[in-house]
Amino acid sequence: MATTNRRPTRRETREVARQPRGDVTRQAILRAAERIFADVGYATARLEDVAVEVGIRRPSIVYYFPGKQELYDEIEADIFASMHEFVQDRLAGVTDPMQRLLALLDAWLDFLILRPTAARIIQRLIADHGPRGDNPIEFSDSALRDLEAVIAAGMEKGDFAPVSAMHILQTISAGALMYVGNPAQLGAKREYDPADPEELARFRALQHKLARAAVAF
Amino acid sequence: MATTNRRPTRRETREVARQPRGDVTRQAILRAAERIFADVGYATARLEDVAVEVGIRRPSIVYYFPGKQELYDEIEADIFASMHEFVQDRLAGVTDPMQRLLALLDAWLDFLILRPTAARIIQRLIADHGPRGDNPIEFSDSALRDLEAVIAAGMEKGDFAPVSAMHILQTISAGALMYVGNPAQLGAKREYDPADPEELARFRALQHKLARAAVAF
Repeated sequence: MATTNRRPTRRETREVARQPRGDVTRQAILRAAERIFADVGYATARLEDVAVEVGIRRPSIVYYFPGKQELYDEIEADIFASMHEFVQDRLAGVTDPMQRLLALLDAWLDFLILRPTAARIIQRLIADHGPRGDNPIEFSDSALRDLEAVIAAGMEKGDFAPVSAMHILQTISAGALMYVGNPAQLGAKREYDPADPEELARFRALQHKLARAAVAF
Repeated sequence: MATTNRRPTRRETREVARQPRGDVTRQAILRAAERIFADVGYATARLEDVAVEVGIRRPSIVYYFPGKQELYDEIEADIFASMHEFVQDRLAGVTDPMQRLLALLDAWLDFLILRPTAARIIQRLIADHGPRGDNPIEFSDSALRDLEAVIAAGMEKGDFAPVSAMHILQTISAGALMYVGNPAQLGAKREYDPADPEELARFRALQHKLARAAVAF
């Protein structure tokens, strides 16, 4: 791997961005940064801490990512792109509107269980105006559109009562974020393991109940 | 139903506001700080910005509050104490378990509509480990216990199916936080006014539907 201590030129940055994702150091930086952004948030996260966790020096990060914003952007974009792909895989071949809604909610829940750092990063994104304050849906729009499409199709077919997709997002879907990202905030007495099969089955059953109720006439 | 869709009374509106302590400057500091903590979060908030907004110098804040942590603590404690009082007023005299659950959800929703800064501060509290990382429920425990008590009473009476109060918290109750605190994060095309009577009535109706479904056998 070629490393350098100088800042890359803009052209080099573009070329680096086009490098195959197989670069081990680049992947290690992204993984460490995702954990740190999830743990402490964008404002508090420091490239120095990412470097320490990866076991490299700060200038080596700058070889791959010109700054914190670019590093964060790639992570947020990847979270929503991966989540969208995960959802589309689960929805493929499912035609019944209710089954599509349940499959979508299951997909989001399972995705967040597999990538809990994503749950906390999205929670922070919701709580905060920045770093996407000027365009809060630059990356998350695909998730909003996935839900809107499923709800609209169910209403069009006459299977779903009129309902706001965004209200469903803010209750049932956001519930998956809370369930995965938030157990420690309930205090030691109430804390649980979101990935525990029994706990997860109970939460999933509740989500299905709520989804059926939300679109029922 | 007594608790549905009515506007809060004037007395309730007064209760949501901080209890006067007789000192105009102290109150102005708390109000300005609550807005700033809601807008930018604990880590980013600066006492200097609070001072500028109040129109005083930073040392004058330190006369009232030794530091940012103490100022924040008083605000967070007041939010949860006021919310608990608001809830208890609404629950007084309501005996049917389902009516108590709906009254509790209505109370939280109405409280947050009247004090939207509280919604954002609680959202931040959920997304973040700090500043209450060592004791995340130091102030919020009253809200968790309010919900647990209502759910436990409904299950004990046999009116509610077995359900986790925390799962209801993370979907339906957290939904009120999202509904009030989060419209701007959905992008300009989807943004709405949470206090708009029609929007609020639709969201409240969804919350009631979800609550009935959550505890149904």
